[in-house]
Amino acid sequence: MAPATGTRYHFFSDNTASVCPELMQALAAANSGFAVAYGDDPWTARLDAVLSDFFGTRVRAFPMITGTAANATALATLVPPWGAVFCHPEAHINRDECGAPTFFSGGAQLSLLPGAHGRLEPAALAEAIAGWPFGDVHVVQPAAVSITQASELGTAYRPEDVARLAALAHGRGLKLHMDGARLANAVTFLGCHPGDVTWRAGVDVLSFGATKNGAMGAEAVVFFDSALVGDFEIRRKRAGHLLSKSRYAAAQLLAYVETGVWQRNAARANELARRIGAAAGKALLHPVEANEVFLDLGVSRREALRAQGFGFYDLGPPTLGRARMVASWDQPEQDVSALCAALTATTPHQ
Amino acid sequence: MAPATGTRYHFFSDNTASVCPELMQALAAANSGFAVAYGDDPWTARLDAVLSDFFGTRVRAFPMITGTAANATALATLVPPWGAVFCHPEAHINRDECGAPTFFSGGAQLSLLPGAHGRLEPAALAEAIAGWPFGDVHVVQPAAVSITQASELGTAYRPEDVARLAALAHGRGLKLHMDGARLANAVTFLGCHPGDVTWRAGVDVLSFGATKNGAMGAEAVVFFDSALVGDFEIRRKRAGHLLSKSRYAAAQLLAYVETGVWQRNAARANELARRIGAAAGKALLHPVEANEVFLDLGVSRREALRAQGFGFYDLGPPTLGRARMVASWDQPEQDVSALCAALTATTPHQ
Amino acid sequence: MAPATGTRYHFFSDNTASVCPELMQALAAANSGFAVAYGDDPWTARLDAVLSDFFGTRVRAFPMITGTAANATALATLVPPWGAVFCHPEAHINRDECGAPTFFSGGAQLSLLPGAHGRLEPAALAEAIAGWPFGDVHVVQPAAVSITQASELGTAYRPEDVARLAALAHGRGLKLHMDGARLANAVTFLGCHPGDVTWRAGVDVLSFGATKNGAMGAEAVVFFDSALVGDFEIRRKRAGHLLSKSRYAAAQLLAYVETGVWQRNAARANELARRIGAAAGKALLHPVEANEVFLDLGVSRREALRAQGFGFYDLGPPTLGRARMVASWDQPEQDVSALCAALTATTPHQ
Amino acid sequence: MAPATGTRYHFFSDNTASVCPELMQALAAANSGFAVAYGDDPWTARLDAVLSDFFGTRVRAFPMITGTAANATALATLVPPWGAVFCHPEAHINRDECGAPTFFSGGAQLSLLPGAHGRLEPAALAEAIAGWPFGDVHVVQPAAVSITQASELGTAYRPEDVARLAALAHGRGLKLHMDGARLANAVTFLGCHPGDVTWRAGVDVLSFGATKNGAMGAEAVVFFDSALVGDFEIRRKRAGHLLSKSRYAAAQLLAYVETGVWQRNAARANELARRIGAAAGKALLHPVEANEVFLDLGVSRREALRAQGFGFYDLGPPTLGRARMVASWDQPEQDVSALCAALTATTPHQ
Repeated sequence: MAPATGTRYHFFSDNTASVCPELMQALAAANSGFAVAYGDDPWTARLDAVLSDFFGTRVRAFPMITGTAANATALATLVPPWGAVFCHPEAHINRDECGAPTFFSGGAQLSLLPGAHGRLEPAALAEAIAGWPFGDVHVVQPAAVSITQASELGTAYRPEDVARLAALAHGRGLKLHMDGARLANAVTFLGCHPGDVTWRAGVDVLSFGATKNGAMGAEAVVFFDSALVGDFEIRRKRAGHLLSKSRYAAAQLLAYVETGVWQRNAARANELARRIGAAAGKALLHPVEANEVFLDLGVSRREALRAQGFGFYDLGPPTLGRARMVASWDQPEQDVSALCAALTATTPHQ
Repeated sequence: MAPATGTRYHFFSDNTASVCPELMQALAAANSGFAVAYGDDPWTARLDAVLSDFFGTRVRAFPMITGTAANATALATLVPPWGAVFCHPEAHINRDECGAPTFFSGGAQLSLLPGAHGRLEPAALAEAIAGWPFGDVHVVQPAAVSITQASELGTAYRPEDVARLAALAHGRGLKLHMDGARLANAVTFLGCHPGDVTWRAGVDVLSFGATKNGAMGAEAVVFFDSALVGDFEIRRKRAGHLLSKSRYAAAQLLAYVETGVWQRNAARANELARRIGAAAGKALLHPVEANEVFLDLGVSRREALRAQGFGFYDLGPPTLGRARMVASWDQPEQDVSALCAALTATTPHQ
Repeated sequence: MAPATGTRYHFFSDNTASVCPELMQALAAANSGFAVAYGDDPWTARLDAVLSDFFGTRVRAFPMITGTAANATALATLVPPWGAVFCHPEAHINRDECGAPTFFSGGAQLSLLPGAHGRLEPAALAEAIAGWPFGDVHVVQPAAVSITQASELGTAYRPEDVARLAALAHGRGLKLHMDGARLANAVTFLGCHPGDVTWRAGVDVLSFGATKNGAMGAEAVVFFDSALVGDFEIRRKRAGHLLSKSRYAAAQLLAYVETGVWQRNAARANELARRIGAAAGKALLHPVEANEVFLDLGVSRREALRAQGFGFYDLGPPTLGRARMVASWDQPEQDVSALCAALTATTPHQ
Repeated sequence: MAPATGTRYHFFSDNTASVCPELMQALAAANSGFAVAYGDDPWTARLDAVLSDFFGTRVRAFPMITGTAANATALATLVPPWGAVFCHPEAHINRDECGAPTFFSGGAQLSLLPGAHGRLEPAALAEAIAGWPFGDVHVVQPAAVSITQASELGTAYRPEDVARLAALAHGRGLKLHMDGARLANAVTFLGCHPGDVTWRAGVDVLSFGATKNGAMGAEAVVFFDSALVGDFEIRRKRAGHLLSKSRYAAAQLLAYVETGVWQRNAARANELARRIGAAAGKALLHPVEANEVFLDLGVSRREALRAQGFGFYDLGPPTLGRARMVASWDQPEQDVSALCAALTATTPHQ
């Protein structure tokens, strides 16, 4: 959906950002001569080792081009066609992937569980598991829990939150998948080690995103237990996601981690979002713990911002008067200053 | 599969080549500031017009990252879950896509038909169609024919070949799909207009490849009849193939066509292959009409070549003594000279 | 799950009942000599006409063996792989079919909407439809509403309830499916014509069950608009549900309708359930409008009933103290008398 | 397809036959009072023991209603979505099930191998296995071999034929499935024990048919290795093939085996077919080793038979002049006498 005429400041999505210079350089550096196709190249070969260093444990990692594909292939590897995946209603796999996990798995269902600020509640998971008729052929069988870090409402799970969900999942043989499309933002916000909110807290498989944070199109499916890789590689191929020139996706992922841009980009976007959230005051719907800000502005105030050239998407039905604003790694400084000024100026007297 | 130690000359695949400079420049040029995500950007928006010019008719075109995905999504749009697709046993969709067309379509079957030199024979198609129990619910129902241009054995369909297959297909309501992973090579060899072997000859939907001919990862699904687009876009999304940063794939495709590298790269690769084929003499299995050469060398001669540093894949079982050699757009000149010399030197006396 | 030792009175399910004599006679009568296979027999051929008479409008009807298959094949005919079906959380298609609608359709999702006493609320449907991003490829697209008549909690939709849901569905191009596994019970309770709560109220496709009401295994998928039949027949075949000896399923359905046992059996089972509900007094959770009774007994009172030889399933987790009791067409009179006496005797003083 | 007017003698299919009296009696005997639903009834419970006795080894057996469902569910249990199943082009799973094995398995492909008289050749299987790129993610991976006993061309595999195929399959980890829609006919013809051509020869899973040989609708999926049952039961449920009133299918299967009608009916049908084959003389295309006869009559002779009131299906395209004639367990004696007389009378002079 193209922005309205007159839009000067773009807070639509971090997918609208450009590729950061370090990753463009990595692409150029990889662009030299012969490399074996379909992942048997030196860049792809280094991915396991580099991501093992990054996470502080041995991993198996596979480059992908889109987050939807990363999530869906990962989940299909964990869940049978009659499996159920517990997730939050706001989960990208529920709201934004057009049923991809069901398609890739050959039928698996999402079972939606509530939680404040976009985070799945352990109590809700515990109750769902306790009441499920495991082993009953009349009913789909839970096989995984999927959480998003940072969540779709811009909040971050603490390591102990993840650990509690993991314990509940593992207690009934379910695997814990993390959609880490914005993992860099969450880890940067939390100030923890990347391992702390992933494998150390019990995550089994991670979709590790770089696209929203400065890459051209690069995600990695990261298995913290190599035994779980299972059929992943053949599933990826038959979904058309095994890249013939895999070196270019791998080179982005290597540079993303090795140059530190994952953190630099995330830190900048998070800080911009924090300033917007601070300027929004009472309009803020959720704590700002990543690079997204969710506001309850009311219709007239929201439309007034648009009239001033600010572009962003509605949150929920237009009549609700809510907005989502996303700060990107390459967001011009003046966009944010202008937005903060506008938000402050339009804050209703109280 | 990594090449053996000592391999100096790589004729494994055109997927092993680098990205050509014009396309790297196009990526750099596209890398500027904000662009709406998921295809609503100016680059993707221009694709229809630019490919309409290229083909000489109005088309709808969608960027994809892999040829497997392009083929499978295109076919799934044309064929129901109980559909059959006629194709040659050598077809990439049969031999190299791990069942992707079946997966994407929810069950469609390939029905294999013979033909010399990798090209589907009209007579075989006519017979298959004539004998099929159309309308019988006990049997999968033919819905498409898929041919590859240039074929997987390095030969090109002439416009009249395509037209005959199209007439047979259309006569029973089947659609004609073309896997054009190497369309540039075929068109360049034939010396025809891109429209002559596609829509003018009756092709309904084309997978138009650029990756093997100098792109990083860029294919387009091209619909010559916009009424056939149907569910394509939602199928692409749920398969994880809708790119959030679509501008980069689109920018490659635009430059591929607009700068003329499609033809320049193909012409060079074709010429190198022609020279190899000429040097091979009687060992040549199929006419060289693109950038691939297929040789019946015998095991000892083939292994002698490998011992001299030439890298290539076996054709069929290793004991058969056959080889496939592929020339890439960036193949060093000296690789080919060396190979031709070696082939000439090792030609058995007769 | 086998009943506990000592169980003398069986209120587990109407699926536990025998086949009523009229239908056994119909099977015997059909069992004479040659009949063309796969539905081209005189019994199956009469089904359209006989069910057209029954419903008071022209229908297309197809025999099936199970309700799960009837529902799933019907829905798969109405809904694409990326479709959503609105239904109540208690719906059989959600709770008891192990994802069959998703499997048969190649991916469709159930979207759960609330409603008291097991009936989908028009207001909830209206809100869901109003807020849905129709046309957005990122999201599954609603294509049908499915309701169960009588509902899984033993209540019946009135014709005007169905009509309001149908109007909402049709207003956005969704089809209305009715799971009529106990349609006979609902129609008998309502005292209306079978057409009044189906096509006259806007139902497009019906799963018309006979198995629970005296048949051996016979359901019909009934299309009230022949244009909707579409791919139904080929879907049925590839799901293994086209019966080679179709005459026997058809003969049951014909006799079910033509002899009036549909109503006689339903009336008896309904009346038995009514008596149980009346005896249960304040323990009754839902109005008794078919042949099922749902009770909140408390754990000790429930187990006391079991100790007296009454067999039935828990409703929800065992600790909740709730029970479901189902009266069958062939339920012995004394079972019900004994149960009513026991319920009255154990009614807590108040 | 209804027979032409004037058809008096029906040799279309054994699916056109009635239910034999012993099985009707078994249905009546099972029709008494309460039985737990969904297979937890005494009839279904006895099936394992009774079929274990029949085959002479411990089996797990599950009732199904159709052969297509039995085959497809069995194969889906053995084969992943990217699996290949080797079978003969004439196999029912290839020609008559509309892609059901692909649908049930979520994508598996049939890979067709030749063999004279409808029987898969060990040499062809050996070659296919030897040349397959096992472990290559670009290619579907063989997981099973499926053979039909008696074959679709009316011939029987000898125990040693099955054993050779089994050895080849098992040597690469493939499972051997047998479509035994007419197993009774083959066993009766061979004069062997039912175990001799099944588990003793290496069959892993069997679709054991009774419908064509006197049942109303009853097949059993028989696992000779209980470890292979795996996900079968949940797959059956979500395909709508778990019968609520399972006792009636089970009762048919028990009586089929226990009363000996399996053999009596097969022996009669085989003998009738043998007589037809003998009368056909040189027109006979395949040895008559079950209850089917395949004839090359020429168009005029074939149509002359039809004009005399004989009904049967063409074999292949109508212009080929070939015919399939099937004798049923309840075929009137005079049908066969008349057919033999007609065949003898019309035998061309030579």
